[in-house]
Amino acid sequence: MVKIISAKWILFSSEERPLKNGCIVIEKDRIIDLGLKEEIISKYENSEVIDLGNKILFPGLVNAHTHAPMSIFRGIAEDLPLMVWLKNYIFPIEAKLKEEWVYWGTKLSIIEMIKSGITMFCDMYLFEKEVIRAVEESGLKALVGEGIFDFPSPSYGPLEKGFELTKELLKNFKNHPRIKIAVSPHTLYTCSPETVKKCIKLSEKYDAKMHIHLCETKEEIEEVKRKYGKKPVEILKELGGINENLIAVHCVKLDEKEIELMANHKASIVHCPESNLKLGSGIAPLTEMLKTGIKVGLGTDGPASNNDLDMFSEMRTACLIQKGLKEDPTVIKAEDVFKMATFWGAEILGFSDTGKLLPGYKADLAVLDLSHYSLQPDYNPLALLVYSAKSGFISDLMIDGNWIMRNYKIISINEEEVIEKVKVIKKEILLLLSQNNYLF
Amino acid sequence: MVKIISAKWILFSSEERPLKNGCIVIEKDRIIDLGLKEEIISKYENSEVIDLGNKILFPGLVNAHTHAPMSIFRGIAEDLPLMVWLKNYIFPIEAKLKEEWVYWGTKLSIIEMIKSGITMFCDMYLFEKEVIRAVEESGLKALVGEGIFDFPSPSYGPLEKGFELTKELLKNFKNHPRIKIAVSPHTLYTCSPETVKKCIKLSEKYDAKMHIHLCETKEEIEEVKRKYGKKPVEILKELGGINENLIAVHCVKLDEKEIELMANHKASIVHCPESNLKLGSGIAPLTEMLKTGIKVGLGTDGPASNNDLDMFSEMRTACLIQKGLKEDPTVIKAEDVFKMATFWGAEILGFSDTGKLLPGYKADLAVLDLSHYSLQPDYNPLALLVYSAKSGFISDLMIDGNWIMRNYKIISINEEEVIEKVKVIKKEILLLLSQNNYLF
Ligand SMILES: [Zn+2]
Ligand SMILES: [Zn+2]
Repeated sequence: MVKIISAKWILFSSEERPLKNGCIVIEKDRIIDLGLKEEIISKYENSEVIDLGNKILFPGLVNAHTHAPMSIFRGIAEDLPLMVWLKNYIFPIEAKLKEEWVYWGTKLSIIEMIKSGITMFCDMYLFEKEVIRAVEESGLKALVGEGIFDFPSPSYGPLEKGFELTKELLKNFKNHPRIKIAVSPHTLYTCSPETVKKCIKLSEKYDAKMHIHLCETKEEIEEVKRKYGKKPVEILKELGGINENLIAVHCVKLDEKEIELMANHKASIVHCPESNLKLGSGIAPLTEMLKTGIKVGLGTDGPASNNDLDMFSEMRTACLIQKGLKEDPTVIKAEDVFKMATFWGAEILGFSDTGKLLPGYKADLAVLDLSHYSLQPDYNPLALLVYSAKSGFISDLMIDGNWIMRNYKIISINEEEVIEKVKVIKKEILLLLSQNNYLF
Repeated sequence: MVKIISAKWILFSSEERPLKNGCIVIEKDRIIDLGLKEEIISKYENSEVIDLGNKILFPGLVNAHTHAPMSIFRGIAEDLPLMVWLKNYIFPIEAKLKEEWVYWGTKLSIIEMIKSGITMFCDMYLFEKEVIRAVEESGLKALVGEGIFDFPSPSYGPLEKGFELTKELLKNFKNHPRIKIAVSPHTLYTCSPETVKKCIKLSEKYDAKMHIHLCETKEEIEEVKRKYGKKPVEILKELGGINENLIAVHCVKLDEKEIELMANHKASIVHCPESNLKLGSGIAPLTEMLKTGIKVGLGTDGPASNNDLDMFSEMRTACLIQKGLKEDPTVIKAEDVFKMATFWGAEILGFSDTGKLLPGYKADLAVLDLSHYSLQPDYNPLALLVYSAKSGFISDLMIDGNWIMRNYKIISINEEEVIEKVKVIKKEILLLLSQNNYLF
């Protein structure tokens, strides 16, 4: 039996015109057909018809870079210089990080992502097995990788164990339908060229994505130049790391030649505009990136530096800053950021069969409830989605043909339990900070 | 009998530390006391105690510049050059504007503002009597003014009628507890110096605010210079318009000397960062403004160019852009934008007895429900409010001691009726556009 899902508006992808009173047909985990509601219903006799009513049905959003467990640190310290924030708050807590914290923090973040229409995300952090456990239980899709760096990790210990763990994950999740593993060197200032080279080899061997923070700040570039006499992109190029597997996050400080180099080698970029603003890193040259044709995804970055996991806000901010910066409202359009937040993100994360609501694609979708106050009137559903939607306005979410949220109720997670657990973790973290005599 | 309202957290103002398990005491329309819940309850015997529970109680937000009726145009055309947007869409519709549209559009916007924690706003548009009618019915506070410009108005007709209307409003609302009238010349490129001079005189005579768009774009400055050989601020200065009554909106293109001049003359500025970005006007020098001590309010601008009336988003954007632009996360802090969005905004609009939850101030407040997913954990209530809150998370709103919204239900407005009326208006507008052969 197939499922027919209709809604007032369907946004099939950033390239198709919105369809009014249309529907899609789902068989098992895939979309097999689409069209006007009346025609489709008469075509499929043995079907379950779900009329969503006054809603916009659209491809689930892809949060192409985050550190999901960090929601447990949300708001712990604000408006500080990056190094003070890291050294006085984040690092001392992370040194005592517990697997349990990672698990519940990820669950909290997944709740927020589901309620924000996100069906897939890319994660880099510590104790990623716990992230995987949370993802498996929730029904979401994810590209995950244990953060690799030269100093000992609070999670796996010495560097070599990090490689072992990554290899183990790469093997174990080779054929998982919803989870893929990325080799995840942290940055070029926390990983030596030798470490990065090993990561590149590993990524080649397993045909896996390599996910790295790149050129986030001018300080990063200066530090790398001081250490190695070269800029980060130059080093990565010499190591052979600029290729189709590369997911380079931030790229705030790329110059035009570097963007072109990345584009020519079919690498991908993930743009995290709100984190870049909030941490004072700057504004990435998104307009210039898009001109080269390079694929750019959109990410929230970690919820401790954003401070949310809201892709509506991220699409909107990405679009607005470029218009303002260039003093030209036509320089980037709603469909551009919608593409970044859907199938470009999905392709970058290695899931190329999702991100559009077209036949052949996986049924990964979200539903925006048009009854809310800021979504009136509905002249233009794409404009509503990008410029006026709020994360809490998502009523339903489906992944691989299964409902993950229905009528605002998350099916796969016990929300109250998660919020209670996070309250306990908060107390543990505050105790830890007070024992360390950190200001709070 | 007094009302005692307690909550997990109270943010009295941007200057006070958040109080845990505190309460405020309200007598009629004013706050008369505050303190820890237990102490206060034993102090006031004859009282109604309202425990809001797991919430943040904070001063209602002030949207210091908007064109509320324009919500009926939300999303009608997007990502276009300003002049195409205005000439092909907005102006032809506004030429046929109906009083009824203004009334229902304002009601729709007021619903959104209430649900976003806004207790007061400043409006400039056409048929402002209809805006006033909507404000009176809703219970909100507002500073309103009929837009004045040299060409005939779809509302009042020839310019002199605009002055008559403004005078009539100034007289009629002299002692209204919730509504004040501003003299509202539109801009220096749509009003001749003579017209502006008359506005200044009127503002002086009635000791009323003068609300004007100023230095929004470089094109505006060029046009004014071409016409009059001087920059807008220069003209305004020569006319004697830079004074305590001046509310200058946008000021994207002010230079440092102009900012200082405005500050020295105790004029006020309203910053509308999202509208400035979205229309491609640029980024106002907010950091430089704040350094001079000039009072800066925060506004959403009209919902057709934003595309919402969300002051949480506006606070966050104002803060984030400056951090990103200056590449320094300490350059502006959560408390700065919270001040702009509360008592600075209130003072600018001429309501200096609101905007803080302290004894002597009016009981104008909003309640943020901490049970929502992006508000976990609650280390820092101010950071949650500015960086993680979503407009739909406001559960309750009070103005002058009266509940306007309680448990997410707006008391003063029939939401469904408004949404139905706006649907009808949408059809009328689409018909009008199709008759005019405009692309749609
Ligand atoms: Zn990151
Ligand atoms: Zn305006």
